[in-house]
Order: sequence, then C-alpha cells, then structure tokens
Amino acid sequence: LAADLRSKDSLPELAERLVRSYGELAAIEHLDERPLPRPQAVLEIIQDLKELIFPGYGSRRNLDWSRIAETAGGLLAGLHGRLCEQIACALRHEAEAGRDGAGDEGRFFDLDLRAQRKSIQLLESLPRLRRLIATDVQAAYDGDPAAGSLHEIVCSYPGLEAVTVYRLAHELHGLGVPLLPRMMTEWAHSRTGIDIHPGARIGPGFFIDHGTGVVIGETCEIADHVKLYQGVTLGALSFQTDGQGNLVRGTKRHPTIQRRVVIYANATVLGGATIVGAGAVIGAGVSITKSVPANTIVTVEKPSLRFREAS
Amino acid sequence: LAADLRSKDSLPELAERLVRSYGELAAIEHLDERPLPRPQAVLEIIQDLKELIFPGYGSRRNLDWSRIAETAGGLLAGLHGRLCEQIACALRHEAEAGRDGAGDEGRFFDLDLRAQRKSIQLLESLPRLRRLIATDVQAAYDGDPAAGSLHEIVCSYPGLEAVTVYRLAHELHGLGVPLLPRMMTEWAHSRTGIDIHPGARIGPGFFIDHGTGVVIGETCEIADHVKLYQGVTLGALSFQTDGQGNLVRGTKRHPTIQRRVVIYANATVLGGATIVGAGAVIGAGVSITKSVPANTIVTVEKPSLRFREAS
Amino acid sequence: LAADLRSKDSLPELAERLVRSYGELAAIEHLDERPLPRPQAVLEIIQDLKELIFPGYGSRRNLDWSRIAETAGGLLAGLHGRLCEQIACALRHEAEAGRDGAGDEGRFFDLDLRAQRKSIQLLESLPRLRRLIATDVQAAYDGDPAAGSLHEIVCSYPGLEAVTVYRLAHELHGLGVPLLPRMMTEWAHSRTGIDIHPGARIGPGFFIDHGTGVVIGETCEIADHVKLYQGVTLGALSFQTDGQGNLVRGTKRHPTIQRRVVIYANATVLGGATIVGAGAVIGAGVSITKSVPANTIVTVEKPSLRFREAS
Repeated sequence: LAADLRSKDSLPELAERLVRSYGELAAIEHLDERPLPRPQAVLEIIQDLKELIFPGYGSRRNLDWSRIAETAGGLLAGLHGRLCEQIACALRHEAEAGRDGAGDEGRFFDLDLRAQRKSIQLLESLPRLRRLIATDVQAAYDGDPAAGSLHEIVCSYPGLEAVTVYRLAHELHGLGVPLLPRMMTEWAHSRTGIDIHPGARIGPGFFIDHGTGVVIGETCEIADHVKLYQGVTLGALSFQTDGQGNLVRGTKRHPTIQRRVVIYANATVLGGATIVGAGAVIGAGVSITKSVPANTIVTVEKPSLRFREAS
Repeated sequence: LAADLRSKDSLPELAERLVRSYGELAAIEHLDERPLPRPQAVLEIIQDLKELIFPGYGSRRNLDWSRIAETAGGLLAGLHGRLCEQIACALRHEAEAGRDGAGDEGRFFDLDLRAQRKSIQLLESLPRLRRLIATDVQAAYDGDPAAGSLHEIVCSYPGLEAVTVYRLAHELHGLGVPLLPRMMTEWAHSRTGIDIHPGARIGPGFFIDHGTGVVIGETCEIADHVKLYQGVTLGALSFQTDGQGNLVRGTKRHPTIQRRVVIYANATVLGGATIVGAGAVIGAGVSITKSVPANTIVTVEKPSLRFREAS
Repeated sequence: LAADLRSKDSLPELAERLVRSYGELAAIEHLDERPLPRPQAVLEIIQDLKELIFPGYGSRRNLDWSRIAETAGGLLAGLHGRLCEQIACALRHEAEAGRDGAGDEGRFFDLDLRAQRKSIQLLESLPRLRRLIATDVQAAYDGDPAAGSLHEIVCSYPGLEAVTVYRLAHELHGLGVPLLPRMMTEWAHSRTGIDIHPGARIGPGFFIDHGTGVVIGETCEIADHVKLYQGVTLGALSFQTDGQGNLVRGTKRHPTIQRRVVIYANATVLGGATIVGAGAVIGAGVSITKSVPANTIVTVEKPSLRFREAS
C-alpha cells in the first residue's frame, strides 16, 4: 500500500515535468493553436463521398430510384457542412503558419467563404469523377481474371478504394486545400497499403491489383490504362539540396508512365526524368532508373539466379 | 452571406445532375437491387468464428469450462442467424445477376433453405478447421525464434489471423457461396497486408511471417509445412484471352508449392505451370517463372551488385 | 420449415463436438486461465500515450497552456490505472505459464506492485521519449521533399506513427513486460504495414518513408539518422537449431546498421553478423547477406535487365 501511494504520488511531479517538456519542444506540441482537421471528420467525409459515387453499395442500402434524389440531396447538404468546417480548419491553420504567401492583413480574410467555395467546387466535380472512376472499375474487370463481376470489384477491391480516395483528394489538392488531401490518402494507405500522393496525376482506366506496398510519388504522371501490381514503387531517385544543404521542394522527382504500361510486382521505377514508354511491360522485381522505350519488355536476366542443393 | 446562400443554393441542382449521372453510369450504382452482404455483418461473423476457434482469447474473456458449453451454444445460434442472412444476400444477388446458370424459374427457389444448409455446413466444419489451424500455430512457433509462446502467436501474429480467415473463407468458397468469401479475405488483407484468395488450396502447418505484401493467387496449390515471408507473391505470369480479346477466367494461372518449401522476403513465383519442388528454398528478392527442382536453393547471384564510394 | 428446424436442431450437437475439440486441442484454447491483455485496452493506452507525447494533435483539441497541466495530470492518472491493469495481466499470465524463472512460491508475489512500478517507469520516460521522437519528426522533414510542415508529419505520416509506438513498446520491453509490447507494435503494424519488433534498438533521427512492408527484426541495431523506404527488410539469414532440431532463441540474428545509412525500397539486409557501414547507401531491390563498408553505394548491376519488344 505504501509503495502504491508512493508511486501514484509521483504523478503530479511527472505531469509538471511533462508540461515543461512541451515548452522546450514546441515543434511537436499543438497547444494554443487553431484546430487541425479531425481524423474522424475526414473519415466521415470519405464515407459520404463514396456513398454519392457508388450509390447503394454503402451503409445506406436498398436505395431505390424513388428515394435517391432526396437521399443524394440530404447527403450533399450534410457533406457540404462538414467539408466547409474541415477545409476552413486546414486553411486557417496554414494561414496562421504564414505559409500562404499573403500579407498579414489578408491571411484570414474571407477564409470561411473560401472554404465554402472549395467545398462546392469539390461537390460539383462528383459527376465528372464518377465517369473517371467508372473507367477504373472497368479496367479492373478487364485486367483481373479472378474478378467475377463489377459488383465484386466495387464491394471488395482495395485498389479501387485507394484510387477513388486519391481521385477525391487530388481534386481538393488542385483546389489548394492543404493537409486534408494527404489525411485522406493516408486513411486509404492505412486500409489498403497503397500510398498515392494527392499531387500525382493519373489518367482514366487505372488499375492497381492487390496493391499492398504500392507507392506513387507526388510528381508522378501516369497516362490512361496503366496497370500496377503490389509493391510497385514510382519514386524519387535522389533529392536536390540548396546551398545550405536543405532539400529543394516542388521539382519533378518522380517518373512519367505512358499509356497501357503494365508494371509487375515489386518493380521500382525511379527518377523525375525517367519515362516508361507506351505499351512497355516492366517485369517483377525489376529496378529502373533510366527511360524505357515504348513497347519494350524489361525483365531481370534469368542467369542471375544461383541454384544449389539444400543440405 | 450572399455568397454563402448562393453556394448552398447550387446544391439541389447538383443533386439533380448527380442522380442523372446514376442513370448514365449504371455499372457503378446499386439502386433498386437486392442488398449485398454488409461489411459490418461480415466483420461480426469473422469475430464470432474466431471466438469459437480460439475460445477465451477474444472479447469474451475469463471463459471457464463450466460455462463454455453454454457460451459456444449461444455463439453458434447467433452466428447461424447472421450467416444465413448474409449467405442468402450473396446467393440472391448472384441469382438476380443471372450468373448461376439455372433457369429463370429455378433461380430464387429455396434460396433461404440453401443459405441455411451452407451455414450449417460451415459451422459443422469448425472442429476440423480447428485441428488444421492448430498445425498453423505450431508451425509459427517452430518457424520463428522470436515467438515466446503459442499464446503470443494467437494474440498477436498477423500471419495467423490472415490464414485463419482464409481457411474459413475457403470453406465457404468451396460451398459455392459468392462474394462473401472475398469480402472476408479482403477484411484480413486490410488488417494484415496479406492477400490470400479464397480459392487457393493450402495444406496444414502453413506459416507466413510478418506477412505485409504477401499475395497468394486464386489457383495456387500449397502443400504442407510451407513457410513464406513478407512481400512474397505467388502470382500469374500472363493471362489468356479468347478470340474477342477478353480474359479467359478459371484456368490454373498460379504456381504449385510442394511441401516444406521456404520462400524468403519479396520473392516472386509466377505461372500456373511453375512447380517449386519439396524442400526448395527461394532466396529474398528472387523472381522465378520456371519450375525449381526439389531440395534446391535459389538465390540472386551476388556479383550482380555494384559497390562504389558515396560522394 | 421442417428443413429449417432440422438444421437448427443440429446446433446443440455441434456445440458439444466443438467443446470436445477444445479439450483435445488445448494449445489453442484459453479457458480457465488468467486473462490476457485486452486489445481494446492496448489501443486506449497507445492513444493516451500519443496524446501526452503530441499534445493538441489528438482528439483533445484546442488545448491551451492554461489548461494543459490539468489535462496532462488527468491523462497520466487514467493511463497509470490502465497500464497497471494490463501489465499485471501480462505478468500474471507469464507467471502462470512458469516462464519467468522464479520459484513457484515467488511467482505471484508482489505482482500488482511490480506492475505499478513498471507503469510509473514507463510514464517517467515520457519526457525523454518526447525528445527522441522530436528528432524523428525533424528527420522526416529533412528527408522528404514532399513534407510541407512538421505539423503535416505529426498529423499524417505513418512512419512516425510506427516509430512512436515502437519507442513506447521498446521501453516496456526493456522493463521486462511480456506480451503487451508486441501487441502494441502489431497494432501499429496493422495500421501502417510497418513491423518493428519491440526488442530492436534504434537511435535518434530515424525516418521510415511510406513504410508499407518494412520489417525490422528483434535483434537489429540501428544507429542515428538512418532512413528506410517501403518494403525494406532487416531480417534473419537462417536460424540455429539445437541438438533436437529446435530453434535457438535469443541470439543476434538481425543486422547492424550504422549512422546515416539510407536503404531504398524493397532492399533486404539479412544476418546477425551483417554490418552496413556508416553513410552507406543500399539501392532499391538490393539483397545483401554480407557486410558493406562505410560510405559505399550498393546497387543492382544494370546489365541484369533484358529488353525486348512487346508483341
């Protein structure tokens, strides 16, 4: 009992030391600051956007044509409210950090209004994004002999989930919304193992099969009808630094993939100047840092394997 | 305020356009159709099945022998109800899609009864599946020097979780239940990064260590006491197409792995005719598209690395 | 209806058979035993620890300096209670399994008191762990041109999440707490695809980018300012067995990585005697089982690729 009291007794002193450490390490505390977008709200926004893109597949089941207009209207109104709130959080946070380039007086001006406009712009893009995502669903069916139906793909394919969330996040990223797009793609990354940066540009008919371990970097450009397998990295080769040794941000660091390219499991394509030509096939485990001509097959040479008897 | 009203004002018109897009892109809507299996119900089914397979490890703790018969009986009754409902959803959905081959009049006949039989058949298989899964737990202990106890494996090994869900889904798949088995293995895929198609055939004493990125294709055949590490792909080499350029579905596209094979991290074994012989060892990062004789060790040749000084 | 009744009728007999199988396969039941740590409690402990390490980023938002001492104090008191309970579970479970080496009479002695001491020792380490984790956040910013701010890293980088949970689990592991540390790192593994064993030793300024598929084994030693990309394995080469063919547990089986090493995507470094020298760079897809001198770049030789035209 004495020991129990002694140990609990140390907690107030520990709390004090911990709070002192908050003052000393301000870089990883977020006290007295404007609130960041909330992970729970980000999740709800993704779920409602998916419900609008794939009506009848989500938690609102048994939707029929007689009720769909009302349901879609209600979902849009609720989503708009939540989007406005979270976009405003992200904008306000960035404005406070002084990273938007505007003068001090202009930073917070019309911030809620700007958030509303961006929310409406995202929602207005939904019919267009549905047409784009429908090409991704078809590409999955055309590219996977194990797919039994389009329904099975919408219900259960993680590649489609990651690409859908990416397409929404890319739209918000294009509208200049900070933080939120990355939180959305990281939610999809956590669920699927597929990490697509919201800044990447990806054409229609995109299919990622299995998908775990796929990484698509910020400045990738991917044309239409490209197919990737699990573990494929479209990454950077090395990073430029300025005179002070700091990283230069914003240059093209990731490859360009032309139309109808297929990249098999665990292949790695690196570098901002690397172009994989249309129709090329990159074999499993291949690592590439230079461009590949159109309609070429690149594989690891077979003799590089060594066979010996197991003891 | 005026702008605020204007932006909200556009929502009804947007809802209309969105609903119009549902009519135009029927492939990715699910309105006016029979309900699909619900992800939440699939999750609850998996949890209860695990509770019956590993009694006392799950949320029902402190189970003792005096109460276990009653608890198991209650769990089975509840599970049966939920399984019947979700299996019926899957069967009805497939029947409606006209993909079960039966004549129009017979499609929906006895559908609930069929669902009940399949549910009972799954539940009847549990004692047999427990014996199989016990060999997987033992294989994990025998294969991982970091494993402190069998309990630690049941509590925390993602490989065991993925294999357990696969064994249950494979049983349902064998009973001819559509959609549900894949939803189960994709739930496990999301949690563990291990993607095992319910159609694969896997013998006793199967161990996947770490596991993130493992892919096991639909037509794989894996004998007893095989060990895989993270990132291993047992995949297809290329796909057959018919005269119209459509994929041929249902042929053997994935490899056969004989007993006591070990495949190390990020290795790739591809092709339906590829057989890895008993006792063979496939090294990390190796990519194979041809058969490997029994008791052979295959590694990437060392000279293929290039060493130079970093600047 | 008759069939319905018949099928439900078989459930009690099935329950009986299942319970019989619990008696036959005792290795995978946990009846009549002391409770194991609960996954839900482990999750709550991780969330509260993160809240104390990154104040203001978690669910308790809008925290300000005037209230932080009170909030931190409340969190610490609640955490201490939960930690005591779960640590005691883990210790009691191990004591019962007779694996702690103590004599029978001493096994359960002072168990709650020992749990309290270990809980306080973990909480006392938080200011020190914060300083360590702040170096990890800075390393992520210095190592990733796509990072917009330190806030973005704390909010959304899975590598930071996995390393934070590892640092907490490693502390508990060092205090001799069984089961719980591994349950913590497996929670992070499930969320991020990054599998770091609590026993590994990792220096300050550690950054894992993207991270899906990374595996860091139990006996790894990693010096300061090391950077890993997705799919990197720091693993074992082969396992020693004793005279009876059982695995020898506890030897150094995993590599040593010296300071300022960078290891690119899907590379594999294996073996307890393998040392990657300071400043070395290991290229994407490289597989290494021997030591690498300091300041060396290791890449897969380019000629091992084969180019041919696609048909």
